[in-house]
Amino acid sequence: MKMAELSARSGLPIATIKYYQRENLLPGGVRSGPNQALYGDRHLERIRLIRGIIDVGGLSVAAARQVIDAIDSDKSLPETFEIAQHAVSAQIDPVTVTEQALARIDIITAGWHVSPDNPGRVAAARVVDTYAAIGQADAHGWFARYAAAAMLAALADIDELDARSDRAEKAETVVVGTVLGDTLFSALRRAAQEHVTAERYGAPPRPIGPTDQK
Amino acid sequence: MKMAELSARSGLPIATIKYYQRENLLPGGVRSGPNQALYGDRHLERIRLIRGIIDVGGLSVAAARQVIDAIDSDKSLPETFEIAQHAVSAQIDPVTVTEQALARIDIITAGWHVSPDNPGRVAAARVVDTYAAIGQADAHGWFARYAAAAMLAALADIDELDARSDRAEKAETVVVGTVLGDTLFSALRRAAQEHVTAERYGAPPRPIGPTDQK
Repeated sequence: MKMAELSARSGLPIATIKYYQRENLLPGGVRSGPNQALYGDRHLERIRLIRGIIDVGGLSVAAARQVIDAIDSDKSLPETFEIAQHAVSAQIDPVTVTEQALARIDIITAGWHVSPDNPGRVAAARVVDTYAAIGQADAHGWFARYAAAAMLAALADIDELDARSDRAEKAETVVVGTVLGDTLFSALRRAAQEHVTAERYGAPPRPIGPTDQK
Repeated sequence: MKMAELSARSGLPIATIKYYQRENLLPGGVRSGPNQALYGDRHLERIRLIRGIIDVGGLSVAAARQVIDAIDSDKSLPETFEIAQHAVSAQIDPVTVTEQALARIDIITAGWHVSPDNPGRVAAARVVDTYAAIGQADAHGWFARYAAAAMLAALADIDELDARSDRAEKAETVVVGTVLGDTLFSALRRAAQEHVTAERYGAPPRPIGPTDQK
């Protein structure tokens, strides 16, 4: 298809598609004339992947390029995971979190194979520090219960991966699952919170009334 | 304490503290002279809460003000939840997600009390649409398994809430749990992914080798 059709089918302006090409997110087409190139379904799928990563997953263009590069490379799956994890994680200097918080996370994730520099380990420790600084206590094992929920999700992630046949598909699933998984979980947690709140405190009437229904 | 001490103990520049006051995130102190006011531990705790919400939770100043206002109000817990949920959720126009995706989420969350306009319901449906557009299939029930994990986390959230005694504490826990819970879960999922990947594919040697270890 020509650029105009690629634009129509993807719903993206031609300028945006060309921007993705300049940023090396999207490969060029097959040259069919002095100022013309032809594009295939692969380009369309790649555009949808980029949109999902940037618009739904919230990644920057630079982070999107990192994970797209990892998909197109011949990197191993653990490596691809590592790249995807770093792309979606806030860069936190480990020295800004306390030793106690790191130790706390290590206890909660005891038995897990986690590198000291896993971006999640440090980010989770920062939440522990913040929680303590605010004066909150996890009276009912909030951290440990989140770890159990996170393990369920990770097992679901890797099972999806195992269901894909070739390396390229697996690598794409690593990236999509890592990037979209955060969004999916946060979204479903909000739905679940409404359910549990309604069960325990009663559903708010619409429009919500002024009294505290405890 | 004077402003200088509040700044020293919170680790924030005076200019930032004054900015928070202008933005109505932080109440004023008790006037002790023509150009001086005194602050208490409540101010220090509130500053730490604001930092946690903005720096660790990633909320904008405007969204932070919404949730701080909700803590200081006499709103019911379901209402406070709703405000916190909207503050942490991307605003997605429901017409931009497909009916099929919404139906899919409703099936996955069958039996849950979820309003049609719950921000999580719509955001989860958008992930379903994105997943389909990219050509991914959830061969092993990825969506349903995330819903189960999300319910575990929501139960942990509400149990923490129930452990707090008064309305102000409960409201603060609603906000902190909603805002920091996303960050905590994402972080722990990355740690869990490394564990499951290492178990199934082998841990990558450091530095990571070039071969795909499937």
